Amino acid sequence: MASLIHFSLDPFCRRVRLALGEYGSSADLIEEFPWDPSHDICALNPAGTLPIYVATSAAVICGVDAVNEYLEETTAGAKLLPGSAEARAEARRLVSWFDDKFYGEVSGPLLTEKITRRFLTSAQGGGGPEMHRIRLATARIKPHLDYISQLADKGGWLAGEALSLADLAAAAHLSAIDYLGDIPWADYPLVKSWYQRLKSRPSFRPLLSDAVRGLPPSPHYANLDF
Amino acid sequence: MASLIHFSLDPFCRRVRLALGEYGSSADLIEEFPWDPSHDICALNPAGTLPIYVATSAAVICGVDAVNEYLEETTAGAKLLPGSAEARAEARRLVSWFDDKFYGEVSGPLLTEKITRRFLTSAQGGGGPEMHRIRLATARIKPHLDYISQLADKGGWLAGEALSLADLAAAAHLSAIDYLGDIPWADYPLVKSWYQRLKSRPSFRPLLSDAVRGLPPSPHYANLDF
Repeated sequence: MASLIHFSLDPFCRRVRLALGEYGSSADLIEEFPWDPSHDICALNPAGTLPIYVATSAAVICGVDAVNEYLEETTAGAKLLPGSAEARAEARRLVSWFDDKFYGEVSGPLLTEKITRRFLTSAQGGGGPEMHRIRLATARIKPHLDYISQLADKGGWLAGEALSLADLAAAAHLSAIDYLGDIPWADYPLVKSWYQRLKSRPSFRPLLSDAVRGLPPSPHYANLDF
Repeated sequence: MASLIHFSLDPFCRRVRLALGEYGSSADLIEEFPWDPSHDICALNPAGTLPIYVATSAAVICGVDAVNEYLEETTAGAKLLPGSAEARAEARRLVSWFDDKFYGEVSGPLLTEKITRRFLTSAQGGGGPEMHRIRLATARIKPHLDYISQLADKGGWLAGEALSLADLAAAAHLSAIDYLGDIPWADYPLVKSWYQRLKSRPSFRPLLSDAVRGLPPSPHYANLDF
């Protein structure tokens, strides 16, 4: 069986888990704390980063884009990228919006300050969260939610008529910070309705039972009606 | 004719230019300073980032990965990604090594401190370079050059027998900081020999005549024998 080495609240690993669920594929999940892995993940991925996907053929695929493109290329019936080159480019543009821009401005700082720093020693940069970084990231979420509203307002999915990697990337980042209770859902009904459609899909269910030691999820995290 | 909106020393834009050269495709180059674009690039790419490729069909493709995958999918005879899914995953892993890890640790800080900050107002964070960031980035280049040596030692290209996007990504980042004179070539003969093979390809030539106003390239930048 294939396996996926991941950290449950890492948005990049979450995107792969969502994709596997959408494809109806399964993989043994092996959880690692990226800041203190119990196995030598560098032996599999010299960059030392997650996700790492080990296919049933024993091929080792490293990094979210390589894994998602690999799964799309090798899974029978896969279609998380649209049919035309232009539409695929639009889905990839939005994936990069979330993985680069949203992660850089919002989910990266929030996850680092609220989770990673709890687990690091002070020599590693651990300790209490830097509140000014949290305030800045929390303020910067709003233009992103406006942008998702605009994309979701067309009635389909973020990159067009069909569910795509763009939706999974967005949901991966939003769900990770929703665990922390950092999304003002009530102010963004279009985003909430799009997210509700995703959250009720079977692929989403495993993510809703995730829990990080010592840091329970926000009360509404697992509720489909939030 | 297609056009490419780019900044000459941006490694991501450089990768697209190298790919166009390898495909034998041409595009009108429109240079913009990412920190102060003269046109409304946000109207084309809401993220406001470069590169932006406008195809002859007028399709607008934004972001380096979307552009490179689009070109690979739509250019007759394109083969900057290898034939098997596993080999493509290896090329994409290495692209991410350079675009995420190398850029985060080395080329991003060096280009920001030595170039971008010269052009920003003090309110935008401009001014003299932060020397501790330059020292840190300069120290962190060494393990990367060791890793490239190891990959190049197999005699082929970085991701295998054939030239791929992995080589272009690596060369895009290295060439941008070579402009600044920041690579200790003499200590890394295997990297130098691999880079020399790339640098002598016709696709590389346009990059060697780039010049940023007020900041001439390092003396050896354009020399094939450096």
